[in-house]
Amino acid sequence: MRLNNQELDQNVERWTRGVLLWVPDGSVTGSLHALNLRNCFYWFQATCIREYKLKTKEKKGTHLPPITKPQPNVILHVRYKFRRCFGLRFQSTFTESSQLRTMAAQISGISSTCSTGSFRDQSPGLAFDSLSSTRSSTISFSSKLSANLSIKSLETRRLHKSSTICSAVVVENNSEQIELDTTLSPRVNSVKPSKTVAITDQATALVEAGVPVIRLAAGEPDFDTPAVIAEAGINAIREGYTRYTPNAGTLELRTVICKKLKEENDISYTPDQIVVSNGAKQSILQAILAVCSPGDEVIIPAPFWVSYPEMARLADATPVILPANISENFLLDPKLLESKLTEKSRLLILCSPSNPTGSVYPKKLLQEIAQVVANHPRLLVISDEIYEHIIYAPSVHTSFASLPGMWERTLTVNGFSKAFAMTGWRLGYIAGPKHFIAACNKIQSQSTSGASSISQKAAVAALGMGHAGGEAVSHMVKAFRERRDFLVSFFQELDGVKISEPQGAFYLFLDFSYYYGTEVDGFGLIKDSESLCRYLLEKGQVALVPGDAFGDDSCIRISYAASLSDLQTAADRIKEAILTLKTTVSL
Amino acid sequence: MRLNNQELDQNVERWTRGVLLWVPDGSVTGSLHALNLRNCFYWFQATCIREYKLKTKEKKGTHLPPITKPQPNVILHVRYKFRRCFGLRFQSTFTESSQLRTMAAQISGISSTCSTGSFRDQSPGLAFDSLSSTRSSTISFSSKLSANLSIKSLETRRLHKSSTICSAVVVENNSEQIELDTTLSPRVNSVKPSKTVAITDQATALVEAGVPVIRLAAGEPDFDTPAVIAEAGINAIREGYTRYTPNAGTLELRTVICKKLKEENDISYTPDQIVVSNGAKQSILQAILAVCSPGDEVIIPAPFWVSYPEMARLADATPVILPANISENFLLDPKLLESKLTEKSRLLILCSPSNPTGSVYPKKLLQEIAQVVANHPRLLVISDEIYEHIIYAPSVHTSFASLPGMWERTLTVNGFSKAFAMTGWRLGYIAGPKHFIAACNKIQSQSTSGASSISQKAAVAALGMGHAGGEAVSHMVKAFRERRDFLVSFFQELDGVKISEPQGAFYLFLDFSYYYGTEVDGFGLIKDSESLCRYLLEKGQVALVPGDAFGDDSCIRISYAASLSDLQTAADRIKEAILTLKTTVSL
Repeated sequence: MRLNNQELDQNVERWTRGVLLWVPDGSVTGSLHALNLRNCFYWFQATCIREYKLKTKEKKGTHLPPITKPQPNVILHVRYKFRRCFGLRFQSTFTESSQLRTMAAQISGISSTCSTGSFRDQSPGLAFDSLSSTRSSTISFSSKLSANLSIKSLETRRLHKSSTICSAVVVENNSEQIELDTTLSPRVNSVKPSKTVAITDQATALVEAGVPVIRLAAGEPDFDTPAVIAEAGINAIREGYTRYTPNAGTLELRTVICKKLKEENDISYTPDQIVVSNGAKQSILQAILAVCSPGDEVIIPAPFWVSYPEMARLADATPVILPANISENFLLDPKLLESKLTEKSRLLILCSPSNPTGSVYPKKLLQEIAQVVANHPRLLVISDEIYEHIIYAPSVHTSFASLPGMWERTLTVNGFSKAFAMTGWRLGYIAGPKHFIAACNKIQSQSTSGASSISQKAAVAALGMGHAGGEAVSHMVKAFRERRDFLVSFFQELDGVKISEPQGAFYLFLDFSYYYGTEVDGFGLIKDSESLCRYLLEKGQVALVPGDAFGDDSCIRISYAASLSDLQTAADRIKEAILTLKTTVSL
Repeated sequence: MRLNNQELDQNVERWTRGVLLWVPDGSVTGSLHALNLRNCFYWFQATCIREYKLKTKEKKGTHLPPITKPQPNVILHVRYKFRRCFGLRFQSTFTESSQLRTMAAQISGISSTCSTGSFRDQSPGLAFDSLSSTRSSTISFSSKLSANLSIKSLETRRLHKSSTICSAVVVENNSEQIELDTTLSPRVNSVKPSKTVAITDQATALVEAGVPVIRLAAGEPDFDTPAVIAEAGINAIREGYTRYTPNAGTLELRTVICKKLKEENDISYTPDQIVVSNGAKQSILQAILAVCSPGDEVIIPAPFWVSYPEMARLADATPVILPANISENFLLDPKLLESKLTEKSRLLILCSPSNPTGSVYPKKLLQEIAQVVANHPRLLVISDEIYEHIIYAPSVHTSFASLPGMWERTLTVNGFSKAFAMTGWRLGYIAGPKHFIAACNKIQSQSTSGASSISQKAAVAALGMGHAGGEAVSHMVKAFRERRDFLVSFFQELDGVKISEPQGAFYLFLDFSYYYGTEVDGFGLIKDSESLCRYLLEKGQVALVPGDAFGDDSCIRISYAASLSDLQTAADRIKEAILTLKTTVSL
């Protein structure tokens, strides 16, 4: 059934619990709300200027900049099967159709991809598919694509070109079999899938195809868990220590954690101020969920660990990114922090030593940050100290909570994965004022309960290995230092590469932006960190993570959790690939 | 500074971003919204009838029943230090001051308690303190009690009695040191702390004091993890299988899970339709977070596992409880289900075999439920099958997803804790259509990442033990069955106790409500499941869980994960304690 505009209006009116539809075009800033529209087929062109406001029960979403230029020949094809949809609102810049990108939300039965683009989708179960052609694009939204409607079949809709207003509504037969509502919660759609997954998958595929890719993308030590820890885990199993532990962790473990924090970090906690979780990731998420109300701001210095902004979104909070430059060793400028704090600022997340930069915050800088923080009664701090022990003298680690006045507002996060090579054991913890920790504990009690009893026994052994992990850990740190020294001196000599010497963790975050804009035969344009990483993977057979994932597109991250000989080979390959680019640049 | 009512009004007007304050009294149903009120001290009596509506930016909260009776001599003392507070709204029944209870939210630096009472607090960081005296009570709210303001000092405010309207506002000096905002997210306050914790703590304290309490409250098998599983875990550690696994779990484990689900449950899944988590609890929470939008309804048959309603609240969804009676073996009536479904109904949670009732849903009943479900395109089903293997012939387990048309809308949850006595290993999983499972996976990727690599290796071994866990599991089930048979025949003979014969799990859910209303010398009134459980703990030295925690206050739950001899002793003790009650009843 095709309807003219009047009929369309009437139909839309009839769907009073239906749809508020916005069509991007040159003159209208609209918004799209969809509620309870069933069994209809909706279709028209972007040159159509139309805005329907129907009864909506819920309004939410992100306000993006309004459209400033007309968009010719953009065909909008909408098929709603929603029974209900929260918070669907989007506005897009649409300034050039070449900016349109393939954005396909995860649709049942269709493998989909999602790349950054000029769309913002806050709605559940929408599929966006547009093509980067200069003249026309197809954008398709659907809450439920039928199994035979593939991305390819969407592409064919490019044929529906026209420059006049043309709209079509197909109301499907209501007697058809009820289709299941497969919408997801808006919180799922607000969270980005990990950008590192794509390149990791590609690397894995290459390795499986026999290509000798060196993988320097992982965030885990390449060492085995020290023997004394492994034995403690084995003993726990042998002794039948395989029952539920208390939700917050065993008293034994929490007690030795308190001892460690007192002796190594100069912060005093009691066991009821500790919650042990399945990894520091869980500790951080629970803390954000506990203290952030919807609309609160979470201040995140960039480059940042990929999960911080997504966790803030999961808590309905707004991530506020404060960029730091390589020339400042990627350290947060206290003045910038001061200038960005508002009444909504609830949480500042610090990570030192830092993933992805390896930077270590000097005590003096932390004191300056503490002075800024102290003036804001709403501002709490998560201090992510998971890389604490992987630090290179003369740099020393300072726990933020140990600074005057900061104990009350700091949640100290640490764990066992990195220092003790225990990633697979899944164990981290948070320490802080009881009021906040009890809230974290409550959330954990309804989400996972206590962590593995076996891992907790192993962790007790880990903390018994001596100051800062004793011999076993210092042995690993020594190896990491050698690798860092090699890589730093290697890349310092490479033209066009900017480098900051990392003082901790096991990452190098290098600025390769000098080479962006280069065109390579048989590969295409290297325009950003993602394309550079793809290039280095395809041509250099080295897997790295694009800095874009960490909030700094100029850089790429090299994890040196690999043997020195692998690192030497990888460095040579990167150099060779980069020199090829350099030739191109010179031409 | 003390202000009269007019001055009070003026001040309230001045705090335009301030406070909307409601005082509970006999004639007004009010609501309290607090936003951005700083440094003020607010104080008046409950006999004061007053309602201020100021500009509020956010409104949320739960609407509780209005007050029906006047309350004399209730002094309200409010001190706000909020910079911002979401969704503070409460209404209270206040029908008797004797019903007022000590409700102190967790306040920084003050140890606090919270018991059920006639208050409902939806606001972050409020402290309620009222006394059970018959004539007067003090209720105090504060977002931040100063360190020297203890519960005792609040009690002294009882002295401020008066029967006339009396109000006071003290605006504090703005130059005082900034106090940290310790409010928590509304989601934390919307989730109840576990009601089972109190009795467990009391039982533990008694045991530590040397009292020979028999604990029948735990939800975990009393058996050790079977040796073949333990060995697999040990081997994983020995072989250095201690690294991160894929987020969704190892392909090896997901593959054998698919095999198990096909062979034992007649449901077909591929490994990408499985996500392995740190326990089935996490699997369920993530599924609820993935599919429920704010305001959706989660249908939960009662008696229910304690976490279901709280998980729904964590997802901003509304738990809708559908009661089932002991006379119907606690099984959900499909007609009742049909009558309660609305457009908002998004999820039905089924648990068979059931915790806490031990009931098993017959296939025929599940088919009837499936017919109801099939008519509602928005309704999905979580089928919690964690007790699947602990089932007593001739009862058989039916997976809901195996019913015609149900695969598409069912999320099947299972795990290793119960059947394989692996509670401390923390491993569960969810299976379902890829669209939903991918969303669960995405949430997990930002909350905990993959589960323990060691536990996953152990789980592979568990699924290799043969059909339904083979010999080792059937040995445990045989023991559970003996215990059940003993307890059922024992309690069937006890007057006034209603019983349904459980067909699975390891719980008995007994109706003791016949004895409610009894007064016991030296103990007090037994008025509900909680007081009965306290009585049985104190007098009978048996720890049980009140049915109230599971949504049925008539009953108490006995976990028979204990040796037969312990169960015999416990049964005798319960009988003796109950017979004492019976004497009292007869008198």
